[in-house]
Amino acid sequence: MSDRVVLAYSGGLDTSVGIGWIAEETGAEVVAVAVDVGQGGEDMDTIRKRALECGAVEAVVADARDEFAEQYCLPALQANALYMDRYPLVSALSRPVIVKHLVEAAKYHGASTVSHGCTGKGNDQVRFEVGIGALAPDLKVIAPVRDFAWTREKAIAWAEERNLPIDVSKKSPYSIDQNVWGRAVETGFLEDIWNAPIEDVYSYTANPVEPRDPDELVITFDKGVPVAIDGETVTVLQAIQELNRRAGAHGVGRLDMVEDRLVGIKSREVYEAPGAIALITAHQELENVTVERDLARFKRTVEQRWGELVYDGLWFSPLKDALDTFIAKTQEHVTGDVRLTLHGGRAVVTGRRSEQSLYDFNLATYDEGDSFDQSLAKGFVQLWGLPSKIAAKRDQAHH
Amino acid sequence: MSDRVVLAYSGGLDTSVGIGWIAEETGAEVVAVAVDVGQGGEDMDTIRKRALECGAVEAVVADARDEFAEQYCLPALQANALYMDRYPLVSALSRPVIVKHLVEAAKYHGASTVSHGCTGKGNDQVRFEVGIGALAPDLKVIAPVRDFAWTREKAIAWAEERNLPIDVSKKSPYSIDQNVWGRAVETGFLEDIWNAPIEDVYSYTANPVEPRDPDELVITFDKGVPVAIDGETVTVLQAIQELNRRAGAHGVGRLDMVEDRLVGIKSREVYEAPGAIALITAHQELENVTVERDLARFKRTVEQRWGELVYDGLWFSPLKDALDTFIAKTQEHVTGDVRLTLHGGRAVVTGRRSEQSLYDFNLATYDEGDSFDQSLAKGFVQLWGLPSKIAAKRDQAHH
Amino acid sequence: MSDRVVLAYSGGLDTSVGIGWIAEETGAEVVAVAVDVGQGGEDMDTIRKRALECGAVEAVVADARDEFAEQYCLPALQANALYMDRYPLVSALSRPVIVKHLVEAAKYHGASTVSHGCTGKGNDQVRFEVGIGALAPDLKVIAPVRDFAWTREKAIAWAEERNLPIDVSKKSPYSIDQNVWGRAVETGFLEDIWNAPIEDVYSYTANPVEPRDPDELVITFDKGVPVAIDGETVTVLQAIQELNRRAGAHGVGRLDMVEDRLVGIKSREVYEAPGAIALITAHQELENVTVERDLARFKRTVEQRWGELVYDGLWFSPLKDALDTFIAKTQEHVTGDVRLTLHGGRAVVTGRRSEQSLYDFNLATYDEGDSFDQSLAKGFVQLWGLPSKIAAKRDQAHH
Amino acid sequence: MSDRVVLAYSGGLDTSVGIGWIAEETGAEVVAVAVDVGQGGEDMDTIRKRALECGAVEAVVADARDEFAEQYCLPALQANALYMDRYPLVSALSRPVIVKHLVEAAKYHGASTVSHGCTGKGNDQVRFEVGIGALAPDLKVIAPVRDFAWTREKAIAWAEERNLPIDVSKKSPYSIDQNVWGRAVETGFLEDIWNAPIEDVYSYTANPVEPRDPDELVITFDKGVPVAIDGETVTVLQAIQELNRRAGAHGVGRLDMVEDRLVGIKSREVYEAPGAIALITAHQELENVTVERDLARFKRTVEQRWGELVYDGLWFSPLKDALDTFIAKTQEHVTGDVRLTLHGGRAVVTGRRSEQSLYDFNLATYDEGDSFDQSLAKGFVQLWGLPSKIAAKRDQAHH
Repeated sequence: MSDRVVLAYSGGLDTSVGIGWIAEETGAEVVAVAVDVGQGGEDMDTIRKRALECGAVEAVVADARDEFAEQYCLPALQANALYMDRYPLVSALSRPVIVKHLVEAAKYHGASTVSHGCTGKGNDQVRFEVGIGALAPDLKVIAPVRDFAWTREKAIAWAEERNLPIDVSKKSPYSIDQNVWGRAVETGFLEDIWNAPIEDVYSYTANPVEPRDPDELVITFDKGVPVAIDGETVTVLQAIQELNRRAGAHGVGRLDMVEDRLVGIKSREVYEAPGAIALITAHQELENVTVERDLARFKRTVEQRWGELVYDGLWFSPLKDALDTFIAKTQEHVTGDVRLTLHGGRAVVTGRRSEQSLYDFNLATYDEGDSFDQSLAKGFVQLWGLPSKIAAKRDQAHH
Repeated sequence: MSDRVVLAYSGGLDTSVGIGWIAEETGAEVVAVAVDVGQGGEDMDTIRKRALECGAVEAVVADARDEFAEQYCLPALQANALYMDRYPLVSALSRPVIVKHLVEAAKYHGASTVSHGCTGKGNDQVRFEVGIGALAPDLKVIAPVRDFAWTREKAIAWAEERNLPIDVSKKSPYSIDQNVWGRAVETGFLEDIWNAPIEDVYSYTANPVEPRDPDELVITFDKGVPVAIDGETVTVLQAIQELNRRAGAHGVGRLDMVEDRLVGIKSREVYEAPGAIALITAHQELENVTVERDLARFKRTVEQRWGELVYDGLWFSPLKDALDTFIAKTQEHVTGDVRLTLHGGRAVVTGRRSEQSLYDFNLATYDEGDSFDQSLAKGFVQLWGLPSKIAAKRDQAHH
Repeated sequence: MSDRVVLAYSGGLDTSVGIGWIAEETGAEVVAVAVDVGQGGEDMDTIRKRALECGAVEAVVADARDEFAEQYCLPALQANALYMDRYPLVSALSRPVIVKHLVEAAKYHGASTVSHGCTGKGNDQVRFEVGIGALAPDLKVIAPVRDFAWTREKAIAWAEERNLPIDVSKKSPYSIDQNVWGRAVETGFLEDIWNAPIEDVYSYTANPVEPRDPDELVITFDKGVPVAIDGETVTVLQAIQELNRRAGAHGVGRLDMVEDRLVGIKSREVYEAPGAIALITAHQELENVTVERDLARFKRTVEQRWGELVYDGLWFSPLKDALDTFIAKTQEHVTGDVRLTLHGGRAVVTGRRSEQSLYDFNLATYDEGDSFDQSLAKGFVQLWGLPSKIAAKRDQAHH
Repeated sequence: MSDRVVLAYSGGLDTSVGIGWIAEETGAEVVAVAVDVGQGGEDMDTIRKRALECGAVEAVVADARDEFAEQYCLPALQANALYMDRYPLVSALSRPVIVKHLVEAAKYHGASTVSHGCTGKGNDQVRFEVGIGALAPDLKVIAPVRDFAWTREKAIAWAEERNLPIDVSKKSPYSIDQNVWGRAVETGFLEDIWNAPIEDVYSYTANPVEPRDPDELVITFDKGVPVAIDGETVTVLQAIQELNRRAGAHGVGRLDMVEDRLVGIKSREVYEAPGAIALITAHQELENVTVERDLARFKRTVEQRWGELVYDGLWFSPLKDALDTFIAKTQEHVTGDVRLTLHGGRAVVTGRRSEQSLYDFNLATYDEGDSFDQSLAKGFVQLWGLPSKIAAKRDQAHH
């Protein structure tokens, strides 16, 4: 059998042309793999046929939407993962699930090599290659756009020469990546960081400035998993989809930021993630009610590191695995309901209730029923402040 | 000279009654000290006169608004301080500046003791007493509400018996604390955490749901200090006030959360902080543009600890001082303009520009002018992922 | 049935007198509970009898040595737990296991209250009371030494009056606490922190200055658990005991330090922990060989927090539980042999081998067999340093 | 003027041959720069002459010993910097000072390029190149050993052909790097990590196993700087040299460990750093006495990150600079005396005294003079444990 290369296939110009190009350059057969992570757009079957027409020896399409929601988006939700306190890791989450399918296809189809279409200045090359190395250390990787300076112009020429079934005239002014957890937009006029985004940039969210009535809903969590919306049982995927629809209708989850890429440069990114932001907002507040203080404080440190690791392409890494065990433990009691209002670009918590609540009305209230023994406070305050007080005495003696 | 007690005086029922009560209990003269931190409400002179009428031997009122803005709110802004990722530390910031004035008054007026009206289940007792201990380790503290179970009912009876010039009929259904950095509301029906706040709770912010046109402004920072709004030079106090007005008009900065108090219980809090939230939003994004990645990542750890310390009453503490030196260093290049849109409860950054920017168009762009050498990426990716890859090989050999 | 109090009983003067004193003060029956955590000294049966003679209605002695070794010392070993980078938490580890037995006894014997003999300025009161609160939130606690200023002088008078079977003449110049994990000595002339400890202070360790030949041994770990010494299978308890003997014979594990107590003061402590220090030294090095770099780096942060929590009395706390899941995950591959030399107060690793090793001779060697592709390094170095380089360019432009 | 390359010159085979080789390959003139960081060995003037004889157009030797001690070793001492809790960063500290001299020489002599002799699998290439990039972003770098696979065999052949004044027969079985802060040994039979080091490996330290009498000394620190030994004023360099001598005579500071390199592999390293370890030991204990608890706890986090950054080649980086401001602040009160005993491979603190001490005999003592108010403890303990207790109640209700 001749050697085979598995190519991460999107159906677009670059990877369609890549099929023939890789075959020619390497003498290997190309297996195209397209993974549905909820990016919408073309039908997966159309994409499969195009791959074959472009010369793939095999074309695999995988519906990974539930897998992506449950095994990738859900851990991010439980980690309240926001890189730089803002970005819910949209693309960073989809790369590892795609990697998993690429590696499986490579094993199944006997390929020695995997190929992706990423450039050399982005984060995704790292996520693909480090992920592949961690799942299948012996697989080789080809990155034609990066390693052989393959350009759009060359791709168009190649496609036209060979009459490939691709519409080369379509060209978004932006570079876009989307999946069920959100949508990322970059390049074009956004590269001038003083320029504001225009409405044209957005697709998952309506304009939050337009007047409309607020929407209200109740999300039910069971051990950190969203299991119902307004009392209707949902899968994780359905929860995200439903909130994309309802929160998106109010313009929730738009982000515009300058971001620190792993490769050492800053880039300007615009995101939309209505479902992700609504779910994280609700989940954080339910944690406020059900997670003990010291645990919650340390979890923030873990969340930050988790987000950096996943952003930095280390989804499949020993530290990520160990942080996951910590986070899983913290979710044991994150069970209850959160009521959200959606309006004007915001998802706002207005109520929370839980049988696992650590909020104790009788300890908190200043009204009848108060069970907090205030006489304990004096000693607490004195000893709490003792180190500062001793230091202050010392400092005053020496100034 | 007889002994003197300095009382933190607000002008309200509890502390007005406290003047006579402390005098009677301790045999000491009472010096009332009221500090203006931008809380609004009654004229400070009216408050001063009431203190004297209630029996204070001296009544001091201090306009600490600029001091508060520059020495307390500004460090919080530079720390992007949000306790539990949300609360901008409104009350926690005002306590130390009040403590400073109490201690100064105690020294000036020869008092041996300071008194405050806090209860034994809140954070403020800690902030007062630990702060006093750190500035004047030898001063004693009396907390009548906590240590002697002084109640509102006893206070009313005392005031009526002695005909004190206080309107005892006024009673807010909430417990409120406010200053120029924001406003905190708790207790009442909010103690049921499933209840949503009603409009009546708010005072600094308009209802974000009402339709209105967005507002847009440009904030200029110089080394982390807001120095101009729309090109007009402002003091820090003016920046906060102006943004309270303009962001408050769009309902920016409302918060509703369950919070971990230092004394070990969870409480439900509603906050409004339009200026604080607008300023922090702008400042964070200017840091994204001007602060190097590793420094920015570690700063988040410092910010979290800074917020916890200040919340926990440790403003005057050796660790807080040392974190401040770190934060000061990070602000060296945080200079430039941020454009904000205010609407629907949100302050949204739409543009940023800085001569100190680390965003490099030529490195970031995918268009003409690209100066990033993509050939470097392959080696980077390989070595970046090498530890995970070696671990993966080991794991596969042992499973 | 009359009310009962469970007393943490050591057999010494204070707690022997405490039996009668608590009975008299509270009108309750006293159940004495003594827990063997390897402290040596008197026979547990002798202690049991003395409790009954002093008036206990029941006297329970529990051999908790294996439980202590496996459930308390082992987690500390896996956490490489050294408070302030030095102290292996000797007393801090034994308190929770004692608490567990006290609470069990309270349930079994129907007691409403638990009592301990700790003072109000140490850490142990916190460890007892917070532990009891976390295991049995409804139990009450009495701390006579602290809350009723019970003193040694009062205890002697009480014992003599009632002719209790206690030798009141014995008085160590030090305050000592010991168990199989180590021994703590404080007070006396050590309270002058310029004084050096004298040989008389030590009991678990020989003088390291005396000339003797080195000892050498091999410790085998299986997933972070010491399972054999020099090829002989051992339990965790036996591993600690054997290393106490052999490392103690060379003076390993002596510590002399000024320490930050939870109650806010600094104290001077002298410790001996030959087995603990030898085991931790070996375990750390096996981790160096078998744990991936990023995981090892983050584990240090977890170790520090773990040590602080346990020192601070929070063994039974949600954060401690969650950190334990993280640490457990890190031990999966900590399997292999470590060769130690014991001599002159030091336990020194001289060799390590593991089938789970991440040390790869072919990647590390500079000799024949080198499989590291040095051509990858250039790109790595360039991008690794890119953020600093961009910042340097910016800084030079602005100075 | 023809182009010039500045070469980091050691006087050894590789860099001596490198002079001519670089000249030939690049057509540029070579300026050799040798920096004395206390590595001992050949006279610097001999080295300078050899460079000229090997074809350098200029040869610069710089006595950087005091600069290295004061600006590189001292910050490491104040950070108690021990990478992986053990390694005092010997080589990692010398690279930046060498870089500084290379960059100065490049500017002075008009060179466009800097060259070093590091391989592609070590840390030093990173430290050189990232450092150069941060000090002079426009300088180019050549690394012949790495980028052009220059080997020892080729170097010998080249030297013999050209009759260069180098003794090519000398070949250590190890790769060695040394300076006043310590000495690093690797490769050879040490690459088998089960092999114990032999005495032949060591040069800075005597065998700790040989019987000899202990040595005792007192180190005086002023704000974290060692300023006197046994009452004799010393410079930082003299302090290190004197302790290298006295602690080295007792075998202090030997280390044998498997280490995580930045380039992603584990390597086996043997170090000797008698002065560094003795100074850090003394400094840590003086901090225990003079630094407040919360500050000390956070400083450990800073110390770990500082050590990682310096190890990872980021000495000249914004985060390192900001951490330095934090550490500088912590040293304000680290003033006083520490008495050390040196014996059997250990430096042991036996006494400490400081006018800046936070150890308060009256608070700590259990004897007469006790000023600690034990009645405060009960309230402290109760509120300290309240979050765990509330969580425990919740957990029990749900199991």
